[in-house]
Parts: sequence; C-alpha cells; structure tokens
Amino acid sequence: MPGMSQPHRRPRVGHIEYLNCVPIYWGLMRSGALLDVELTRASPVALNDALVAGELDIAPISLVEYLRHADDLLLLPGVAVGSDGPVLSVNVVHERPLADLDGGRIALGSSSRTGVLLAQMLLTERLGLTCEFFRAEPDVPRMLEKADAAVVIGDVALRAMYEAPKRGLTVTDLGAGWRDWTGMPMVFAVWAVRREFAEAHPGQVKEVHEAFLRSVRLCLDELDVVAEATSRWEPFDAATLAGYFRSLDFSLGERQLAGLRVFAEKAARRGEVPALPTDGPALFAV
Amino acid sequence: MPGMSQPHRRPRVGHIEYLNCVPIYWGLMRSGALLDVELTRASPVALNDALVAGELDIAPISLVEYLRHADDLLLLPGVAVGSDGPVLSVNVVHERPLADLDGGRIALGSSSRTGVLLAQMLLTERLGLTCEFFRAEPDVPRMLEKADAAVVIGDVALRAMYEAPKRGLTVTDLGAGWRDWTGMPMVFAVWAVRREFAEAHPGQVKEVHEAFLRSVRLCLDELDVVAEATSRWEPFDAATLAGYFRSLDFSLGERQLAGLRVFAEKAARRGEVPALPTDGPALFAV
Repeated sequence: MPGMSQPHRRPRVGHIEYLNCVPIYWGLMRSGALLDVELTRASPVALNDALVAGELDIAPISLVEYLRHADDLLLLPGVAVGSDGPVLSVNVVHERPLADLDGGRIALGSSSRTGVLLAQMLLTERLGLTCEFFRAEPDVPRMLEKADAAVVIGDVALRAMYEAPKRGLTVTDLGAGWRDWTGMPMVFAVWAVRREFAEAHPGQVKEVHEAFLRSVRLCLDELDVVAEATSRWEPFDAATLAGYFRSLDFSLGERQLAGLRVFAEKAARRGEVPALPTDGPALFAV
Repeated sequence: MPGMSQPHRRPRVGHIEYLNCVPIYWGLMRSGALLDVELTRASPVALNDALVAGELDIAPISLVEYLRHADDLLLLPGVAVGSDGPVLSVNVVHERPLADLDGGRIALGSSSRTGVLLAQMLLTERLGLTCEFFRAEPDVPRMLEKADAAVVIGDVALRAMYEAPKRGLTVTDLGAGWRDWTGMPMVFAVWAVRREFAEAHPGQVKEVHEAFLRSVRLCLDELDVVAEATSRWEPFDAATLAGYFRSLDFSLGERQLAGLRVFAEKAARRGEVPALPTDGPALFAV
C-alpha cells in the first residue's frame, strides 16, 4: 500500500522528575529527541520498579537497584547522576555531630535506595558507629521526631540543605562524605537498558543512547538558561539551581566506573547486592 | 531565606496525542516551552473532560464541547486544528454513494464530538437524508458490520483513507464537505483556558498562549523535518505525513472564527449546543 508500512513501537524510556534531571530533560527537548521515545516521567523508585518489571525498555535506575538486577541490564556508558564531591541533594540531616550518634536511631527516606545505603556505609564502616536504621517517609521534621538523623535525597534534601541550618540542624553531604572517604566520585543513578531489548533492537538503543549523550552535552552548555527557566517554578532562585546543576556529574567515564565498582564491592560485602562480575558492569555497545 | 521562595505551580496543559498535533508538540519541544507546563498527553475526549472538570487549566477541546461549556472557557486566538478544505482525518467511510443512504444506519465513532455532528449536519441538512445514527467504537470494519457508513476521526480516519479504497469503500472527507457546503474553513478543535484560571493567572496564560503561537510558527517552518521524524514510528511515510500536516490549518484567525460561528449556529439550531452570544466566542486577551 503506497504511503503505509508496519510501524515500529517507540522505545519506552523513563525520566526522573526530580530537579537533578531537569538538565537532561531540557537536552532531550531541545534536541527533538522526545519525538522518538515514549517518555514516562516518574519518581526514581517508580522507574526502578518499571525497568525491572520490563514495563520500560530504558531508564535511569538507582545504582543499588542496578546492582541487584545487573544480569538483566546493560549500562549506557557516558550518562549518570553522580558527583565528584558535594552533591547537595543526598544528605544526612542531624542535630548532634555524626560522631555522637552511636546507639542512635537513623531514619532512612523511603524514596532512596543508593543514598540510604551510602549513609549506612559511612556511619557504620567509616565512623564505626552502631545505629538502628529504619525506613520512613521522606519528611525531615517528622523523621526527626522519631530519629536522631534523617537521610533524604532529591528535592527534599536540597530544600533541607537551605532550611536546616536555621533550625539548628546540621546537613552532611553524602557525595562529599564518599569522596573524603574513598577519593572517588559517587554514582547515584545510572541509565540502563534491558538486555533482551538491547539484543532485539540494538539500533534503537544506540539512537536513544546517543540522544542522551547529546542531551547531556547540550544541557551542560546551557545550564544557566535551564536554571533560569526552572527557577520560575521551583523554590530556588536561578543562581542556586545553576550551582546545584554544576555540582552534579552527569558523566559515566572510567573514573566514575571505578567509583561505582568500589561502591558495588562495599555493598556486596554488606550482603545488600550480589557481587559484580570482575569485568563488570556490563556496558551497552553496538 | 536566601535562594528560596514560594514556587508557582506550572499551568496544567493538555496535548492531543494524535498525529494531527505532533507538529505542535514538536514546536513546544524545540522552543523549550515544555519546561514551563505540566503537560498531559491524552486522547481528545479525555482532554475535553479534564478541561471541563477543571483538572486542566489550558487544553485543546473539541469545538462542540467548547460550545457546550463556553461560559467557563476563553478561546486562545491563533491556534486551532481545522482545515480549509480536505482534512484527510475526519471521514465518512461508506460502500454506497452518500446520496443513497436515505433510511440507512450511520455509526458515529465514539472518539469524535465535532466530526460526528458535522457528519450528521451534512447528511441530514445538506443531503436531506433521514438516517439512524448510533454511537460505536471507532473501528471501521466492525462499524460497517452494523452500519451503512462509519464516521471516524484522527489516526483511524487517516488510515481508513488509505485502506478503504482497496476494500471497495468510499471515503468522504468532512473538511472538504463543509467547505463545499458553506465556503468556510472548518474548525475541529480549539485551545481554551478556564475563565477562572485566566482571571487568576493572566500572565501565565499569556505565556502559554505565546508558546503555542511560537510552536505553530516554528513547526510550520519545519513540517518536513517533523514528518520525517514522525514517519519512523507511524504506518505512514514522510511524504504522506507532510501532506497530511499541510492539509491541516493550525490557525484561528477571522476567517476560521467566521467558520466556527456558522458551525455554532447550525449546532445550536439542532439543539446540540447553546447559542453563542452575538459577540462570541469569548477570546482570551491580557
């Protein structure tokens, strides 16, 4: 039939609707790449679940969840959400100094997978504390009614960083804590494709991957514009947002992969995730 | 608090996920306007309901539904989905010539509001036929099992235009039918803002309106690029899509408003909608 053919299905792609991923959304938008994906915008936890359940083909996934499901997934090299030092939005909020929290209760925000595990590592392994950890809704004042410290991520954590000091609370940046401890960048989320989808549609995955790489490059060039545009709708001014975006590391190169492997090894030693294969993580490559 | 302020809520804006609105989505994307709205992509019927229910602030709405709720809404001038002649995607599909359908049964696709009323006007008022009309799921072969003609819109109608002839069926273009009858362009959908939202947030509405106007201009300049990009995921090739996009009229100027008023008057005479006020429709203006 002239003019008609069997259509392909667009790849089902996830996007984190937190502030930290606005620059990447900007890049996907400005480059026109949104037309070539069926985009689902949701919280990190919802995206983790959807990717693992096969309801999405490609999505950002918390590093810990990736490690738990590494057999089914391939990482997209070059794109991640991490930091090489302070990240501003993965925080422990506490009243007493961290070193005084031995025997204390630590509330772990339910929206976090990697951040809360990182907090546990730092408190128990680096500081040698014994604490009681429990899950809680990510609401700092309520968490601190029942706990000595609260671990939160994302917009809630970013907000806490600005609000906590005036309430006499201290904020410990877990990206900075990790770098001080290991000398490494921290990777909080990676982009992964389901292995079976990559095998069936390598060309589509290559294109989406390239679109993400283009988006990261494009948004880094336009961070001040993104910050200005975003500030209209958020409780942060443009300068604050630009500083936040610049604190994030959207790359996933050798140095970030090395940091990822150190985290994976520590996490496996704690029994939280299976060990990565020695040549892991498995990367997508056409 | 330095760096922080009370944020505004982004306007809740609807977008039709049919092919006919891909050019406008392209424009919203490329211009960066998506960052300033909370976009809901859905079918026209779902958007109609959401706008009327106040779950969206600004959305495209079927002309008929607009006329039914004109008291609560203001039109955004300059943007619409219509045609000044053939529209390709609002069709009657039939076996016998239309003039032979007196006493026949006509299936009206449930996804359409304005298209099905236009079909009824043309069949009964212009052709003087008496038909039995009934609602049905928009699936042409199934509709024609129980009816002598099927009225469909959107991607289903566009597809029927290409597939029907090889099955010995005739396709009557309702955009062309309206122009032959009245000499006017037909407006199938308009963009409207809830009156109360426009009163509360005139500046935001002005910006969204300007973003739509920019998107329409931008996409008209890039229709071949949009068609090429879209053809990868649809059952139509780039040339077919470009032809389709060019058959659409995304403008809403004096000539389109005149056509809209003629339709509104006919619809009111049939008792389908309340009459427009003599100076109607009420347009948004800052």
